[in-house]
Amino acid sequence: MGFVSKRMVYAGSPIREDEDLANKLAKEGKEIIKLNSGDPPRFLPTPEYIIEAYERALKEERTYYANSQGAIELREAVSEYYRRHYNADFDPDRIIITQGISEAIAFVDAALIDRGEKALLISPYYPAYVSYIGLYGGKPVFIPAVEEKGWSIDLDALEKTVKKTKKAKYLLVVNPNNPTGSVLDRKNLEEIVRIAKDNDLFLISDEIYDEMVFEGSFTSMSQVAKGLPYLLLNGASKTFDATGIRIGYAILPEDDEKSNQLLTSMIRLALLRISANTPAQYATAYAMSNVAAFERSVSQFREEVKERVLFTAREVNKSQYMQAVVPKAAFYVFPKLKMEKLNVKDDKEFVTKLLQEKQVQLTRGSGFGSPNHVRFVALADKETMSLAISKIEEFCEEHAR
Amino acid sequence: MGFVSKRMVYAGSPIREDEDLANKLAKEGKEIIKLNSGDPPRFLPTPEYIIEAYERALKEERTYYANSQGAIELREAVSEYYRRHYNADFDPDRIIITQGISEAIAFVDAALIDRGEKALLISPYYPAYVSYIGLYGGKPVFIPAVEEKGWSIDLDALEKTVKKTKKAKYLLVVNPNNPTGSVLDRKNLEEIVRIAKDNDLFLISDEIYDEMVFEGSFTSMSQVAKGLPYLLLNGASKTFDATGIRIGYAILPEDDEKSNQLLTSMIRLALLRISANTPAQYATAYAMSNVAAFERSVSQFREEVKERVLFTAREVNKSQYMQAVVPKAAFYVFPKLKMEKLNVKDDKEFVTKLLQEKQVQLTRGSGFGSPNHVRFVALADKETMSLAISKIEEFCEEHAR
Repeated sequence: MGFVSKRMVYAGSPIREDEDLANKLAKEGKEIIKLNSGDPPRFLPTPEYIIEAYERALKEERTYYANSQGAIELREAVSEYYRRHYNADFDPDRIIITQGISEAIAFVDAALIDRGEKALLISPYYPAYVSYIGLYGGKPVFIPAVEEKGWSIDLDALEKTVKKTKKAKYLLVVNPNNPTGSVLDRKNLEEIVRIAKDNDLFLISDEIYDEMVFEGSFTSMSQVAKGLPYLLLNGASKTFDATGIRIGYAILPEDDEKSNQLLTSMIRLALLRISANTPAQYATAYAMSNVAAFERSVSQFREEVKERVLFTAREVNKSQYMQAVVPKAAFYVFPKLKMEKLNVKDDKEFVTKLLQEKQVQLTRGSGFGSPNHVRFVALADKETMSLAISKIEEFCEEHAR
Repeated sequence: MGFVSKRMVYAGSPIREDEDLANKLAKEGKEIIKLNSGDPPRFLPTPEYIIEAYERALKEERTYYANSQGAIELREAVSEYYRRHYNADFDPDRIIITQGISEAIAFVDAALIDRGEKALLISPYYPAYVSYIGLYGGKPVFIPAVEEKGWSIDLDALEKTVKKTKKAKYLLVVNPNNPTGSVLDRKNLEEIVRIAKDNDLFLISDEIYDEMVFEGSFTSMSQVAKGLPYLLLNGASKTFDATGIRIGYAILPEDDEKSNQLLTSMIRLALLRISANTPAQYATAYAMSNVAAFERSVSQFREEVKERVLFTAREVNKSQYMQAVVPKAAFYVFPKLKMEKLNVKDDKEFVTKLLQEKQVQLTRGSGFGSPNHVRFVALADKETMSLAISKIEEFCEEHAR
């Protein structure tokens, strides 16, 4: 580009890359079924008790700069949540409140990645992780999850890659996973912890979808990683069905040298940008502390999401043009396109032409490191989703090879 | 540090570096007069119409992800504000909404600064500018403002430094200035624009205090920089007396190659973090569009701030231990300490001991690039400020050489 920095090749997002086309179509009066952004309030209203908690924060005039690390009331509420759900004992001073998990990711890579350093990720991955590593001059190293085995992680392959990759700065797992909807069970997590310990590797576990597991109970990294330096990421946006409030949490539970260095650095990065939105922090604290409303509401939301996601997976799997592993969690269905039956070049062309011709907006799998896949945000109601899938089916028929 | 990246030496903030000590003293039951953070809602309540605008945003359930570049309603309101105040014609598509100006600064340096590249700044400077340049591997080059001439810019010195500094990525002015309270007049701005044109230099003007000028009308860079690539930064936090809502604006008014490259890059960086807080964006849009309440409220706020700042400057200048240029704008008084009369090592020791011994919290001038100065946030009421200054006087007497 010339004027701008070389790192700008890493900026951007596959999830919103077709917005200009979508806006153009919308201006022409075309109705678009948007299934690209994992944004539940667009489909299911934010619960009233959260709006009320936010209004309370405003009534109390929480309009000043908060503590840079996060309002202590929110850090205490997060600690309390982990005590209640995972029997964890997290010091609020080891919790940092961020502007969505996105900011926490940016802080982590700013703090850990020097030029040329490597970080280990499972693919498919959430795109921003790879972007921020690139922006800070690092190199992601991928361990592919095995689609044929329900997107599970091949632990032998993981261990081999860990041993082969000298001095990787961290190993990241997104669990439950976006985009695959897979969940790591306790045994898997214990193995990952063992591998990390054996190889002196810092672990990061992004558990933003921890409340969106459809069957059984979820095991958090915090339940198996004791004594190991690790970072836990979570946030209110998805659980609260209120993505626009942009509240993430970064937790460094263990009092060891690596954890302490990262904690100090993340706080210093937080100081630089002064404060996350203060009313949203208090809103989150009040809503999390309203335990009865929180539990009832999250449980209803989970049931509704589960129904929609499983419906989407079932409908998608009726198609002869794509095939999805049935998700166990989160908001997404991530089918493989049967490219041999389709007369389109790749998944990018597929989603762009689909938007252009049928006004259904998905995200290309190559954006998550899985070419020939597409990601559905499976939160639309059944009628809308049926319509979307029938339009996709028409599209596939029209582009059949 | 070992585990963390080398760039971490640039993270942190002098404004909040003594928070641990302040918190410790507070826990011991000591009352602290906090004059370190430019956070007006701690001193003067946020106007009711802003709280109401925020409540309206919540009533409307603006809890989803906004457009990454910013909600169009807010970009239009910002454009309208500039039309009203500066007769400017800004396309909302050339405006980016950020999480405070802090995020805009981070975006600018991420987008413009490759390793080893230089950026020109006037000193004293706002510390985050220097931190972000460092974080992205750049080198700030300073042009000192002349305290003896009311912190004005020596334009000959500026031009010499510009010519000497090959390939500087930009020249930044913060106008009105934090921490000095100086304001560039139209003639000065025209000269700066001429120098930028002659040297093919990109200009950045941070005008976050544009509504806080005590006498006469303020000239915005946008009124004199036509035909030149430049970036305008502003935000709602200070003008609205609602810092905690964290809403900044970055505007690239000119349709030229450099501006367009930076615009594209900043939008791509905004996509990565998905969205700024959505209710805060709508709150800002609604409050800005409530023209009568906005103008009345800002004008009252400005008068109150002016009275407090000028009172502080007068009282500070009665001391034989410090001397301040009387500010023309913003929230601060920035006196020089008469170190020859004081038995303290430097401004850092001065502010830390002052906090420890007298429980008055200022910020050290060296954090702004001006050793032997201190910054007062001059927003406290007269009684509190008088008390603070008498405690500082006591402190100086006790540490007189």
